[in-house]
Amino acid sequence: MTTIILPDYLYTPEGYLREKAVAFDDRILTIDTPERLREKYPEARLIDTGSDSILYPGFINVHTHLEYSANRTRLEYGDFLRWLESVIRERDTLVPQADNALMEAACRQMLRCGITGFGAVSTFGTDLEVCRRVPQRVTYFNEIIGSNPATVDMLYQDFLQRLDASRSCSPEERITPAVAIHAPHSTHPVMVRRAVALAREEQLPLSAHFLESPAERQWLEEAAGDFKSFFENYLKSDRPVTTIEAFLSQFDGYSSLFVHAVQTTEEERGHLAEQGHHVAHCPRSNRLLGCGRYPLEDRRVPVALATDGLSSNWSLSLFDEMRAALMLHYQAPLQELAELLLRAVTLEAARSLRSDAGRIEEGAPADFALIRLPQPCPREEDLALQTILHTRQAERVWIAGEELPLDHE
Amino acid sequence: MTTIILPDYLYTPEGYLREKAVAFDDRILTIDTPERLREKYPEARLIDTGSDSILYPGFINVHTHLEYSANRTRLEYGDFLRWLESVIRERDTLVPQADNALMEAACRQMLRCGITGFGAVSTFGTDLEVCRRVPQRVTYFNEIIGSNPATVDMLYQDFLQRLDASRSCSPEERITPAVAIHAPHSTHPVMVRRAVALAREEQLPLSAHFLESPAERQWLEEAAGDFKSFFENYLKSDRPVTTIEAFLSQFDGYSSLFVHAVQTTEEERGHLAEQGHHVAHCPRSNRLLGCGRYPLEDRRVPVALATDGLSSNWSLSLFDEMRAALMLHYQAPLQELAELLLRAVTLEAARSLRSDAGRIEEGAPADFALIRLPQPCPREEDLALQTILHTRQAERVWIAGEELPLDHE
Repeated sequence: MTTIILPDYLYTPEGYLREKAVAFDDRILTIDTPERLREKYPEARLIDTGSDSILYPGFINVHTHLEYSANRTRLEYGDFLRWLESVIRERDTLVPQADNALMEAACRQMLRCGITGFGAVSTFGTDLEVCRRVPQRVTYFNEIIGSNPATVDMLYQDFLQRLDASRSCSPEERITPAVAIHAPHSTHPVMVRRAVALAREEQLPLSAHFLESPAERQWLEEAAGDFKSFFENYLKSDRPVTTIEAFLSQFDGYSSLFVHAVQTTEEERGHLAEQGHHVAHCPRSNRLLGCGRYPLEDRRVPVALATDGLSSNWSLSLFDEMRAALMLHYQAPLQELAELLLRAVTLEAARSLRSDAGRIEEGAPADFALIRLPQPCPREEDLALQTILHTRQAERVWIAGEELPLDHE
Repeated sequence: MTTIILPDYLYTPEGYLREKAVAFDDRILTIDTPERLREKYPEARLIDTGSDSILYPGFINVHTHLEYSANRTRLEYGDFLRWLESVIRERDTLVPQADNALMEAACRQMLRCGITGFGAVSTFGTDLEVCRRVPQRVTYFNEIIGSNPATVDMLYQDFLQRLDASRSCSPEERITPAVAIHAPHSTHPVMVRRAVALAREEQLPLSAHFLESPAERQWLEEAAGDFKSFFENYLKSDRPVTTIEAFLSQFDGYSSLFVHAVQTTEEERGHLAEQGHHVAHCPRSNRLLGCGRYPLEDRRVPVALATDGLSSNWSLSLFDEMRAALMLHYQAPLQELAELLLRAVTLEAARSLRSDAGRIEEGAPADFALIRLPQPCPREEDLALQTILHTRQAERVWIAGEELPLDHE
């Protein structure tokens, strides 16, 4: 069944289009004037979404941790190491509390905000069932973590088992199996090498937390700082398992997603850019954990915007995230930043996950989020900004051409 | 009729109290243990608000412009002068569109967010009827503006008439008449002198926009910059009517509220502090108009937090504003900033308006906003932060001891 949708504006990789409609089934068939589309698809159902409506590709939240969805006020914010210790302290309560109902509610919250795809970093595999069940496209990042050489084989086997489980899903479940390396300081280089090789061979999306906090950088460079006592206490280790350079070079030639990257140097970002990597920028998480501000003004590295998990955020809304980003990067030219942010939750987000969604163009999946501005917007150059300022929830959402009911709050 | 309210936590000027209740009629009578209060007021009605509830004094939004409530997407953001020109261009449409129903909706939005008092800067007097009708305490700032010496007398008479109208309200309408001087660059020194003298004599709350944009500072100091062509085009004037120092000195000895102050120097802030003035800090407005970041880390000047009008913001929620402030001031220690922000919407906000509200202490008006955390908060030092992160609307609100129905969204 073909549908033609005619919004006031269409957001495409080339900018906003007016007086253009989209014909789609589960993928986008044609973008053209409504007249020509009706001629071409005379049987199609027509949806005219009316004044001040903007059709976006479904938004994509590239980095979240559903398994920590039970946190609201329990984890300690303000400083990375204090937060990390609170995670370790609370983990055994929080993770079991994140039952399927709770994780599904988190996914529904995302859907209401127009999020039709997300990257779920899975440490334990307890979120797979929910990810299979929800309508969104899920890039299921099986995480590998562990710096003790004695446990490398066991941990890698466990990772492979989880990866296999995520590979065994049916296409209608829209799960893309993927690999997440926890971080340079926490994952043994042997496992990093194996996991990267596997991702490369099978062309799986690949991500890694990278230089999130000043403490991480200091530990990797000097075997000192806040992480020193952490590693001594919890892991009986007095020096880092790798260097920044050695870690980074493992990914050379295979476009990956580096999460946070707040504490990267200009040179390191140059390397990320050269190698075709993306950065996942998580403004609110970085702020709450005292990690600093990612230098978004370095435009060489393409950026995807993400909420991170509820372990370090108060919502999974990318609109909340974009509004927060406008404040964090208060010196950035406003309209330009707004445009960058919308690109970072659509086209660049999709690219960072090796997905062809996130764009309204012919052949792309028919994933859409329709939003409506509260008033006519007199200047086209303000559409991105006004969308960010005024959207709390999407009005309508489609995934693979199918409209999904939204239980609006 | 006396009521005793027993929340999980009580937010007082001395910090959060546990196992304390508040007895009140239209004012706060006693703060003590629930047992002792029941003994003292045996006839009182008891409200136990249960787990994770925190009773705050009603929040106070010291600076807003109800008359511009019709704006959503029409004004141009990103640069102060472009915004100002868009205000001039759109004013004749926007101001009439802000009819009573629309302005009342804005006040209801504030009430839902726990705002029981606000400062309404009134340029035209068209918002007085609504301010009289809404339940909140309104500090009604009659604004005086005009830099042309030929019009000084006429404008001052008009200002006096509006001031008189706001003085003629009955006590139940909870209107406090007040004086707002538009800004140093826009108000003739003769009017500034008269208006300040009048405020001083009658002990009226007094406020002024002050050094909001870099352009304002440059105009006042050098008769140059973006304001130059603005003054030449609109006002046939080629130099400023005053200097920063001369303007500021007019307020010496009378505690006033300086709005924005983003572009103040350390010395000027020292002067504000010495003279007992407050700054009204409007993070989102400043960001949207390209004004920069007020240096909140200068703790000498007490700060009230405000939303400004819908002419430069997307909501009138002080919770949205506090969350935005956490991002803007991303380098500030998190818990400490959260505490400062809550003080800036309660005690310091009230002080800046010369009001005895904004605090839960004996004798203060019984204005309350009850909020509920979504989860028990394990650390008392996180209560302020978690309140800010998780509160979208107040659960219950009282003004002068009377509970008000909230039409929750």
